[in-house]
Amino acid sequence: MWRLFQFPLCPFSRKVRLLLGEKGVGYELEPELPWERRDEFVDINPAGQTPVMIETQRDLRLIDSQAICEYFEETVAAAPMITGSAESRAEIRRLVAYFDQRLYAEAIAPLMRERMTRRLDRQSPDSGALRDAMRQVGAHLDYIDYLLDHNRRWIAGPALSLADLAAAAHISVADYLGGCAWADHQSARDWYAGLKSRPSFRPLLAERMPMVPPYVAHYDKVDF
Amino acid sequence: MWRLFQFPLCPFSRKVRLLLGEKGVGYELEPELPWERRDEFVDINPAGQTPVMIETQRDLRLIDSQAICEYFEETVAAAPMITGSAESRAEIRRLVAYFDQRLYAEAIAPLMRERMTRRLDRQSPDSGALRDAMRQVGAHLDYIDYLLDHNRRWIAGPALSLADLAAAAHISVADYLGGCAWADHQSARDWYAGLKSRPSFRPLLAERMPMVPPYVAHYDKVDF
Repeated sequence: MWRLFQFPLCPFSRKVRLLLGEKGVGYELEPELPWERRDEFVDINPAGQTPVMIETQRDLRLIDSQAICEYFEETVAAAPMITGSAESRAEIRRLVAYFDQRLYAEAIAPLMRERMTRRLDRQSPDSGALRDAMRQVGAHLDYIDYLLDHNRRWIAGPALSLADLAAAAHISVADYLGGCAWADHQSARDWYAGLKSRPSFRPLLAERMPMVPPYVAHYDKVDF
Repeated sequence: MWRLFQFPLCPFSRKVRLLLGEKGVGYELEPELPWERRDEFVDINPAGQTPVMIETQRDLRLIDSQAICEYFEETVAAAPMITGSAESRAEIRRLVAYFDQRLYAEAIAPLMRERMTRRLDRQSPDSGALRDAMRQVGAHLDYIDYLLDHNRRWIAGPALSLADLAAAAHISVADYLGGCAWADHQSARDWYAGLKSRPSFRPLLAERMPMVPPYVAHYDKVDF
């Protein structure tokens, strides 16, 4: 059995979990707060980040969310998520990198700092930093609207792909932390509602971060 | 013919160029300074980053260094760089992500800021920030030493891989900017000397960043 080292609001672990859910790969959760830099964890992953996946019986270790997704894409045929022509596959990977790097650094990480890390530290958020983070989430939801409005059924084209799972993983963390002004983003909202209703999403919506309850009542509702 | 939008000290473009060189894929260089945020460039790549590759005749656009590398790995059989078992391929991708994210953010980007951006702006480096950046380069060279000293001929295992090209791309920028104290890193030095002598490396070593000559005389020498 695979063990997945993660914490409930880690967007990169959520991306991996959505992929595993779509593919029907089972795993057990191992709680890991990477900012505590537990010695045994840093020994396994010098980057000190979640997710990490370990399969003890076969002595397998997978590190880095994109390396993990590519591994399961190569080894599990069900529910392929990097599909189509070489150009389509490049577009999927471009968008995954965009969400994992730009969306995360500009919007999700600052929002997590203000509404998760500070709460764990029993501090109040910095209202200016929080406002900036919310504005950045909005700008990225605009980009998701734009992608969906330009002849795409899904984020990267006609088929559900890893780009949708990556975007939804990050957006789900923003939504948990009350960062999504859905009324301004109808296309993104319809897309996200569709994803929320998939079985792969349900375990994520049922989970709670210790000490940090969801900021919005609609977080786990398919209608919102 | 492919056109590659880049600037000479962009480590991500260097990674792509090393891969294209190994695979024998031809391309023309298009100078692009991403921090100028040229409108036409940002329209092509909303992330605003180099490298971008365009093939006008076939109307192809490739964006994001890792998506570009995966594209050529999938479409050009020569000189495969993500090879071996699924676990080996995951280890190669883990290390590429490590160098592109951690090495870059912690060491290469700060060094570029102090020794490239500030020079382009006709400012002096901040000596404290420069010292920190140099120390970070050293810490990452320690990690490269460690990888090479633990039963690996190359960074990710017995074969040359994209992990070597990614690491060497970043390290070559650090070396250009005088950031590598080679005397302390014999294993990394031998490895880097081997890479520098490959034909794929020569175009990079011959190039100069406008206004920013190399900080060390050994930059383009195979013996250093």
